[in-house]
Amino acid sequence: MRGFFISVEGSDGSGKSTQIRKIEEYLKKKKQEVLLTREPGGTMISEKIRELLLDPSNKAMAAKTEMLLYAAARAQHVEEFVLPNLKQGKHVLTDRFTDSSIAYQGFGRAMGDMVAEVNRIATGGLSPDITFYLELSPEAGIGRKKAEVNHKMDRLELEKQEFHQKVYMGYKALCETQEQRICKIDASQDIETVFVEIQAGLDRLFGF
Amino acid sequence: MRGFFISVEGSDGSGKSTQIRKIEEYLKKKKQEVLLTREPGGTMISEKIRELLLDPSNKAMAAKTEMLLYAAARAQHVEEFVLPNLKQGKHVLTDRFTDSSIAYQGFGRAMGDMVAEVNRIATGGLSPDITFYLELSPEAGIGRKKAEVNHKMDRLELEKQEFHQKVYMGYKALCETQEQRICKIDASQDIETVFVEIQAGLDRLFGF
Repeated sequence: MRGFFISVEGSDGSGKSTQIRKIEEYLKKKKQEVLLTREPGGTMISEKIRELLLDPSNKAMAAKTEMLLYAAARAQHVEEFVLPNLKQGKHVLTDRFTDSSIAYQGFGRAMGDMVAEVNRIATGGLSPDITFYLELSPEAGIGRKKAEVNHKMDRLELEKQEFHQKVYMGYKALCETQEQRICKIDASQDIETVFVEIQAGLDRLFGF
Repeated sequence: MRGFFISVEGSDGSGKSTQIRKIEEYLKKKKQEVLLTREPGGTMISEKIRELLLDPSNKAMAAKTEMLLYAAARAQHVEEFVLPNLKQGKHVLTDRFTDSSIAYQGFGRAMGDMVAEVNRIATGGLSPDITFYLELSPEAGIGRKKAEVNHKMDRLELEKQEFHQKVYMGYKALCETQEQRICKIDASQDIETVFVEIQAGLDRLFGF
């Protein structure tokens, strides 16, 4: 039997990393084999592409270049890591997937439908079985990141407030059109309350 | 007035570099401002993508990843270098453009129409005004490269004979469907004879 493919989405500072660790812990307690991964990244080649994407010295990067690099990293991730593991019956839990490209490039950069089109090609149409979207207003998210000690802002975090507002609206639109797949959770709540909602989604998917 | 966009295509060993130098020399003699560039590359970000693409250690690269990385490098090249220069009235002469992706990825890797689709997005539909395709059988091309002193074979040159045969057939197909734009030239001829045919194409385009 094929494993489940689970993604966690949300802006920086929304608590993705914390909740991903809690999901992993919960599934392990339930005797499930789950592999953690992230985008852009998850394979050696995708991590090299990630370095290009996040390097603040690449200021001249065109919006289309950025979108195509994310898709290239994703194509490698899907073919080399996600699909082979799902086929072996393992569950894959990823920090970001195509929804991020649609929110950040499609909406944030106003590139529209071409982002979904390129990503359909990159992923061969693979979509998560369930997505947990940790919704947090851009103001609150950036505030949390800035409060972290020694946090170096990457190229995308350094974008203007207006960009993050568009990304936020992009996720809103995705939640409306993909409400069967995406569980939207208010990430301004405390960690345990957020996880109770995630756990309900996991229990439903796995039939616990 | 907008400058002309000229591409030179052909397998490795077909004599592209030599003919590009001769085109530049000829156009300068005719008092034309011409800028030389190459793909993948031509901008700082595109050259970084080029390194990923040609590095023989990236053996695990999926065909789709490769195709999307070429498109990403091209998108940056078009937006940062090609279009701004054409708009300023300068002529741009490039070593490879979209035809290479269609031949190498579309045909060589059997990826089909998705390559043209992604590249239409990457280039915004930009196509060269004229393309010189230096046709040389795969056997002859690889033989020439191997005969070069100290030539290190890159990741694509190291591909099997069968791959290069498919690329060759891809260019053949492109020449048939794009015969208005592509001048196919027998590159097994000597350097001066090849250039006489190129010069005829340039004279026609520029109205010399």
